[in-house]
Amino acid sequence: MAGNSFGQLFRVTTAGESHGPGYVVVIDGVPPGMSLGEADLQPDLDRRRPGQSKITTQRDEADRAEILSGVFEGKTTGTPIAVLVRNKDQRSKDYSDIKDKYRPGHADYTFDAKYGLRDYRGGGRSSARETVSRVAAGAVAKKLLAVQGVSIVGYVKQVGAVIADVPDPAAVTLDQVEANPVRCPDPAAATRMIELIEQVRSQQDSIGGTAEIVATGVPAGWGEPVFDKLKADLGKAMFSLPAVLGVEYGAGFGVATARGSENNDAFVPGTTPGGITTTTNRHGGMLGGISSGLPIVLRCAVKPTSSLPQDQPTVTRDGQPTTIATKGRHDPCLLPRFVPMAEAMVAITLADHYLRHRAQNADR
Amino acid sequence: MAGNSFGQLFRVTTAGESHGPGYVVVIDGVPPGMSLGEADLQPDLDRRRPGQSKITTQRDEADRAEILSGVFEGKTTGTPIAVLVRNKDQRSKDYSDIKDKYRPGHADYTFDAKYGLRDYRGGGRSSARETVSRVAAGAVAKKLLAVQGVSIVGYVKQVGAVIADVPDPAAVTLDQVEANPVRCPDPAAATRMIELIEQVRSQQDSIGGTAEIVATGVPAGWGEPVFDKLKADLGKAMFSLPAVLGVEYGAGFGVATARGSENNDAFVPGTTPGGITTTTNRHGGMLGGISSGLPIVLRCAVKPTSSLPQDQPTVTRDGQPTTIATKGRHDPCLLPRFVPMAEAMVAITLADHYLRHRAQNADR
Amino acid sequence: MAGNSFGQLFRVTTAGESHGPGYVVVIDGVPPGMSLGEADLQPDLDRRRPGQSKITTQRDEADRAEILSGVFEGKTTGTPIAVLVRNKDQRSKDYSDIKDKYRPGHADYTFDAKYGLRDYRGGGRSSARETVSRVAAGAVAKKLLAVQGVSIVGYVKQVGAVIADVPDPAAVTLDQVEANPVRCPDPAAATRMIELIEQVRSQQDSIGGTAEIVATGVPAGWGEPVFDKLKADLGKAMFSLPAVLGVEYGAGFGVATARGSENNDAFVPGTTPGGITTTTNRHGGMLGGISSGLPIVLRCAVKPTSSLPQDQPTVTRDGQPTTIATKGRHDPCLLPRFVPMAEAMVAITLADHYLRHRAQNADR
Amino acid sequence: MAGNSFGQLFRVTTAGESHGPGYVVVIDGVPPGMSLGEADLQPDLDRRRPGQSKITTQRDEADRAEILSGVFEGKTTGTPIAVLVRNKDQRSKDYSDIKDKYRPGHADYTFDAKYGLRDYRGGGRSSARETVSRVAAGAVAKKLLAVQGVSIVGYVKQVGAVIADVPDPAAVTLDQVEANPVRCPDPAAATRMIELIEQVRSQQDSIGGTAEIVATGVPAGWGEPVFDKLKADLGKAMFSLPAVLGVEYGAGFGVATARGSENNDAFVPGTTPGGITTTTNRHGGMLGGISSGLPIVLRCAVKPTSSLPQDQPTVTRDGQPTTIATKGRHDPCLLPRFVPMAEAMVAITLADHYLRHRAQNADR
Repeated sequence: MAGNSFGQLFRVTTAGESHGPGYVVVIDGVPPGMSLGEADLQPDLDRRRPGQSKITTQRDEADRAEILSGVFEGKTTGTPIAVLVRNKDQRSKDYSDIKDKYRPGHADYTFDAKYGLRDYRGGGRSSARETVSRVAAGAVAKKLLAVQGVSIVGYVKQVGAVIADVPDPAAVTLDQVEANPVRCPDPAAATRMIELIEQVRSQQDSIGGTAEIVATGVPAGWGEPVFDKLKADLGKAMFSLPAVLGVEYGAGFGVATARGSENNDAFVPGTTPGGITTTTNRHGGMLGGISSGLPIVLRCAVKPTSSLPQDQPTVTRDGQPTTIATKGRHDPCLLPRFVPMAEAMVAITLADHYLRHRAQNADR
Repeated sequence: MAGNSFGQLFRVTTAGESHGPGYVVVIDGVPPGMSLGEADLQPDLDRRRPGQSKITTQRDEADRAEILSGVFEGKTTGTPIAVLVRNKDQRSKDYSDIKDKYRPGHADYTFDAKYGLRDYRGGGRSSARETVSRVAAGAVAKKLLAVQGVSIVGYVKQVGAVIADVPDPAAVTLDQVEANPVRCPDPAAATRMIELIEQVRSQQDSIGGTAEIVATGVPAGWGEPVFDKLKADLGKAMFSLPAVLGVEYGAGFGVATARGSENNDAFVPGTTPGGITTTTNRHGGMLGGISSGLPIVLRCAVKPTSSLPQDQPTVTRDGQPTTIATKGRHDPCLLPRFVPMAEAMVAITLADHYLRHRAQNADR
Repeated sequence: MAGNSFGQLFRVTTAGESHGPGYVVVIDGVPPGMSLGEADLQPDLDRRRPGQSKITTQRDEADRAEILSGVFEGKTTGTPIAVLVRNKDQRSKDYSDIKDKYRPGHADYTFDAKYGLRDYRGGGRSSARETVSRVAAGAVAKKLLAVQGVSIVGYVKQVGAVIADVPDPAAVTLDQVEANPVRCPDPAAATRMIELIEQVRSQQDSIGGTAEIVATGVPAGWGEPVFDKLKADLGKAMFSLPAVLGVEYGAGFGVATARGSENNDAFVPGTTPGGITTTTNRHGGMLGGISSGLPIVLRCAVKPTSSLPQDQPTVTRDGQPTTIATKGRHDPCLLPRFVPMAEAMVAITLADHYLRHRAQNADR
Repeated sequence: MAGNSFGQLFRVTTAGESHGPGYVVVIDGVPPGMSLGEADLQPDLDRRRPGQSKITTQRDEADRAEILSGVFEGKTTGTPIAVLVRNKDQRSKDYSDIKDKYRPGHADYTFDAKYGLRDYRGGGRSSARETVSRVAAGAVAKKLLAVQGVSIVGYVKQVGAVIADVPDPAAVTLDQVEANPVRCPDPAAATRMIELIEQVRSQQDSIGGTAEIVATGVPAGWGEPVFDKLKADLGKAMFSLPAVLGVEYGAGFGVATARGSENNDAFVPGTTPGGITTTTNRHGGMLGGISSGLPIVLRCAVKPTSSLPQDQPTVTRDGQPTTIATKGRHDPCLLPRFVPMAEAMVAITLADHYLRHRAQNADR
């Protein structure tokens, strides 16, 4: 399988390029009888779309989703749901001068090395615009999970040296996140993040950061013990997103300097009869790769946008030194639009493991 | 698929528990005609096995591998290779007093929540002893990759606050790593790491750390562009290992504070005609999820051993508060034995992507 | 995986219903650099489309394919190829009176039993119109195989009691097949088949038959030895087509009365140096599930169309006896349009095994 | 995936060769809490084993199964079940004279063409002895299905021209089948079949036949609509067995001469309130690829044993004409031992679709 599908039972297959006719996603395995319409997909597509605020790219795409199948009389039928999002504002001429140059930090060179050719119009298949398919599928996954009491909220935790103060990740609401264009629930930090992003843009530069994604309401027991640990599949999901160079759960890299006696989260009686919980959540909501009932908390490190309007040294396809300045419209910081993409992948992964769990353990 | 298989074309399936008869691994998809014998598997099994040094657990397992199939007259036949490693020193009585308690930091509770029962003898399927199967499969993968010029070396980068100085990750040799029991190529740091591990053991405690794994010789072009990015599959592979709470590539979480102009690795002409490379490797050897020809460099954060000989608060299966001290034999620091496990998973993932790449692109 | 994908490396995923907006197929894993355009898909879509002759259904669908991705400047890029075929002549009102009745021989009842609801407009996902996706994908597979010297020709072997005389299945040409609307290379039999089909239609009835599909040029060595035998995957492919109740290879059910001494095809030297062949082909081109280099010959038994304009006894959704006459436009005999569907599935299966074979055995 | 695994959720992976140390099967996805022990596997292994009666091969294998994992205190744990069956009576010297010759009807030549080498000891991986793994897995599947009220019974329907009279396939019992060594529930036909088999053996020849497998108690709703139709996956399962050249359901190839008005099984009210059934079962228990609640009835055509003690013409590895007489111990008719193999594959396929159905539709 050439890598354009994700999930075993809640299975997402995508196709499309940034400057072709559009993007398609097929979502297979959705249980029947769930109400679904295009209006369910649009909010997250709007959170992901370019041109949504002054700190994102100004490419203008309405990103309207058309459901082509799998829904009848407003309900899912159990058959595959295909969604089409056509491209509109393609401006492929913007890219003609990079046809024979490799943009630093992009996949131009590696695609060429792999396939012997590449669609040079804005990255083709490697464009982050590909995530439009994931976000559409993620919206379906979120609906399915909501019935199970699971909700997923992501936010920007860090931009450059500006770090948000988020005392309780599991208490952050979508409204708090959407209250500012940088999607940071700490208003003071948000202001400084926006200033920083505007500053780097004015300097023809870009800036990295981190995002934190939290899933609450996941019951204990989801995930498979060995290769398909929930943390493994979530990790794959996150690293499958463009620009992610690091992923961590709970205490994350902080465990390197911790002792066992301080790192173990002690089990204590829960609030429900017979229920069990932990008072701290350094484990990030999974033990042995299986959900513990605590919130799942993960963080992603996202690199600064590789495309820069300033000249950067590179080489041509035939190996000659040159320079390149990418004149396309790009985000000076990827994080604000990264949030819905990451939420979508968390949702797809959890929806898949929900179905996988009940396939084997539905009697329980 | 219930999560006990890994890989699409170089496909590994494992079974077994820490206190059952033994472990089985089936390795499917190995090309025919490669010389292979049990002697090829033993070195890495010896690096992984318990009781190998004073700073590891004293459980004594020879971990002898028996090849049951797929090899004829010293060569792989193209049919599946099954390997059996029987358990010897099981001492399951050590675990009888934890039958009705949940060990903090372990999968006892989550297995129970998932399946409604658990093999309480040393973790059963959740025991890290399960990695014996992976290391056997990894040895086969390493042999396959060696023919392609790919080699994989891992080492301990950090234990607690002790951080090794490794100027050039791609230059570290297996001999340097195996020169000391903590598997750290910086001899001075190794000495301090060993002292620290012995100290925490004397305090009935444990300590975390990080490991760095480097794959050299991977040609540009391996990996799939979207969901099965090489960084995504390697990330899944790493997070599928026990105790891993963080994974990062190249500059890793350091990208959060970086600007694009400093983070992009500039392409420059390579040493071979028409060859292309980058002078720095902040991208960690993959761009757009596809290998760039630079060394693949990744780091894993490994938590301190959860099993401690000191009393820790926990609850019983029916939710009553109690304490637990795990009297089994455990590593005070997981890192030294983690290195061959991580190398194995990197090797399996790369072997799979090598076959996947040539399936689609063998004409090139 | 909910069953809407086929193949491991040449991987086809479909979505769509007979009376929804249209059909989508995503073809993943196609090697890069192959010339491809919509004109390559149309001939087989035209052979499959309704309304093509007087002996098929009169539903009028142009079945124009739009390639949405995976092709750039006339060549495949190695990324997934999505194809969209919109529905035009849907006339869903034709089906309103069957909303609460189960058509005999159709999937109405079983879909309802499975999902608790169904798209009652012409069968929804269970409509044979779904094969439009397969035929589009099959056309891509045929192009890929043609480069390897493989060609696939199918034809109608039998309609009712009329059996074609085809002395050498491997010698039948597409031109011979397309010379008459019933797609039978024996002109005399074709005439009688057409008469029979017109007769059963005038009697408001339908008639079954068999089709024979032949793949020539497949080299020895394709197929996997155990579960994914080439005959197993081809068998699945054929049985995945609507209305197929039997599949056989070579001597087929005739082996039941054969003795080993007469059934074994003797190996003899081939025409090329060192080449090996068999003089007879009772084995149908595969031995041990792996292609032998002889033509692959298979036959499918296709039932008579279940939809009939005459009254048939059935029950309503709530189990009350009633009668039903399906007034939609239907083929009185499925065989002529079955041929391109079956060819497509053979092509997809062979393309997949071609890539699978070279993934493991590209060194050979 | 190189073809040694079967099933999506009830997933079986096998390894082993006829003259190596033994066979391994890993069964992943079995629900937890089901009682299971080696005694559950032995009856079907005994029905499959060589040397069981005078009309089978005299190779003597006890075929004792050892469960290596996945069962604790007599119950499945939800983790993978590995089963080991060691080879005993290997006599590989029997095969030394065929090292450089291709046995007609066997996979010797095609393995060589595929892999460039072969394990020439009795067919290696291509030996029908490989089905010992399937039968062990099938026994687990049967136990799982029995809880759902599903039972599977197979029998020999035809040997040469001797055809059993089986008025009601769904009424055949295991006791009737096991009442004679040829496994035919029609005692009179059984006697003639045995005579025929002894006759062909005395003539140093072999004979083909058909087997019929019936699954009763499958509720309406199992199976996926498009590629993974139940008839498609069962068809693949059957064709994955050695020597099968034809598969048919219900009316099978008889549909070719049928008219729709006679072929459609009319729906009628069932015996339970709201229940629906059909009075006839020409459809073989599946409609649109989904089970209808009627018995699933399928037939396989099994070729005569290819290995014959008489001289047969063939060629050497380097293409020179020669003759071969296979002196190993072989069944003069494969059918009696084919029955448990086919039952096993039906059971594995149904167990998989049972889990797949409830994964998506457990709410129903």
